[in-house]
Amino acid sequence: MVIAGIVAGGVGQRMGQSNMPKQFMKLAGKPVVIHTIEKFLASPEIDAVVVGVHPDWLHMMADLTAKYFPEEKNLVLAPGGDSRNGTIRNIIEKSEEMFGADGGTIMVTHDAVRPFLSMRIIRENVKAAEKYGVCDTVFGATDTIIQSENQEYITDVPIRKTMYQGQTPQSFRIGLFREVFQSMTEKELEGMTDVCRMFFLRGHKVYLVEGDSSNFKITYPFDLKMANAMLEGGSHD
Amino acid sequence: MVIAGIVAGGVGQRMGQSNMPKQFMKLAGKPVVIHTIEKFLASPEIDAVVVGVHPDWLHMMADLTAKYFPEEKNLVLAPGGDSRNGTIRNIIEKSEEMFGADGGTIMVTHDAVRPFLSMRIIRENVKAAEKYGVCDTVFGATDTIIQSENQEYITDVPIRKTMYQGQTPQSFRIGLFREVFQSMTEKELEGMTDVCRMFFLRGHKVYLVEGDSSNFKITYPFDLKMANAMLEGGSHD
Repeated sequence: MVIAGIVAGGVGQRMGQSNMPKQFMKLAGKPVVIHTIEKFLASPEIDAVVVGVHPDWLHMMADLTAKYFPEEKNLVLAPGGDSRNGTIRNIIEKSEEMFGADGGTIMVTHDAVRPFLSMRIIRENVKAAEKYGVCDTVFGATDTIIQSENQEYITDVPIRKTMYQGQTPQSFRIGLFREVFQSMTEKELEGMTDVCRMFFLRGHKVYLVEGDSSNFKITYPFDLKMANAMLEGGSHD
Repeated sequence: MVIAGIVAGGVGQRMGQSNMPKQFMKLAGKPVVIHTIEKFLASPEIDAVVVGVHPDWLHMMADLTAKYFPEEKNLVLAPGGDSRNGTIRNIIEKSEEMFGADGGTIMVTHDAVRPFLSMRIIRENVKAAEKYGVCDTVFGATDTIIQSENQEYITDVPIRKTMYQGQTPQSFRIGLFREVFQSMTEKELEGMTDVCRMFFLRGHKVYLVEGDSSNFKITYPFDLKMANAMLEGGSHD
């Protein structure tokens, strides 16, 4: 079994004056998260979709899914947790409860605010997670990446060809997630914004799936404008 | 004295079927590089502009500057070098020859294919280069950054809040560049795609100037579409 876990835990902070979380903003007339859900429902690899939503926004999300997917039995909501990984854990529990997921089930986690992922990326995630247990979708950095430990001056400039921007999906077997998540100390979980970092810290080889420049995250108002322009402009090549 | 050095050394490889370097592609009816030059000519901090262009495209560039800036005395071209740093060295030589630049002159180097830089970014670059000798324009990473030494699986996931995407301008005193560039071995210069990395490797503190999400690089056809959409859509907030 393969389940898509869509992380829509955000409460809307970086979008300027608006208080609405980015996943609910309109893109070509439809909320961003609805576009994302549609992609997974359309993928032949995916058996069910679980959307993790911040408790404050669960009601609104339920209204949206009732409106856009009234007949869809393979789509359910889960309450978001305190952190991204907490939300993923809640998505997993909901998957077990509703769809009988077990340790061997593949969970394809994805940002609600990356509506432009392709069928190719979903397919390669499922394949890599089945083969290796865990994988990450990445895109070779176009900009030089620099590190600053003090926010004042550069403390490292790693060689560019080894650097990637992490995208999503990030996919893994549920059993492996449980094992790793339970082994983390509270201190380790602090500021752990990335699920693959957790696997990496426990010594798992996290295999790479090639992302796409169009699979970007809608973070700033600028990004939403870009995303709307993309859809209005027709196909994105 | 402050001189802008615009790096337009590209010969056009990542833009799909087109053979035209990205800096010459049309953005709202005008070549990308012309937009970029206009920004620097409009900045009160900048005394002159030198554009480094690949030898194969010098003639075309000269036609463009004659067309768009027929009366401009403070704009000249320099032939591009074998590498980005080689192009910057040629820009510096041309600045000395044409404008009497010396070791104390501030050189504000910028990618021709980042036409959306702001006056604020130019101003802060000049200020930081005057104060510290060298600075880099960076933008906090929105995506997790990952490292893979083998292109197969993750070999590091640095803490996100310490990671930045390098943009340009990258600004420095010409005397400092000469000192650092001359000290590099041929092996060190191989694959040195970033001028700030060179300063960093020689122990200089490269101070950070805050970039902007709109100051992106036009690399893929997707980016050009975005850039056009931005300009058609009016102001980018």
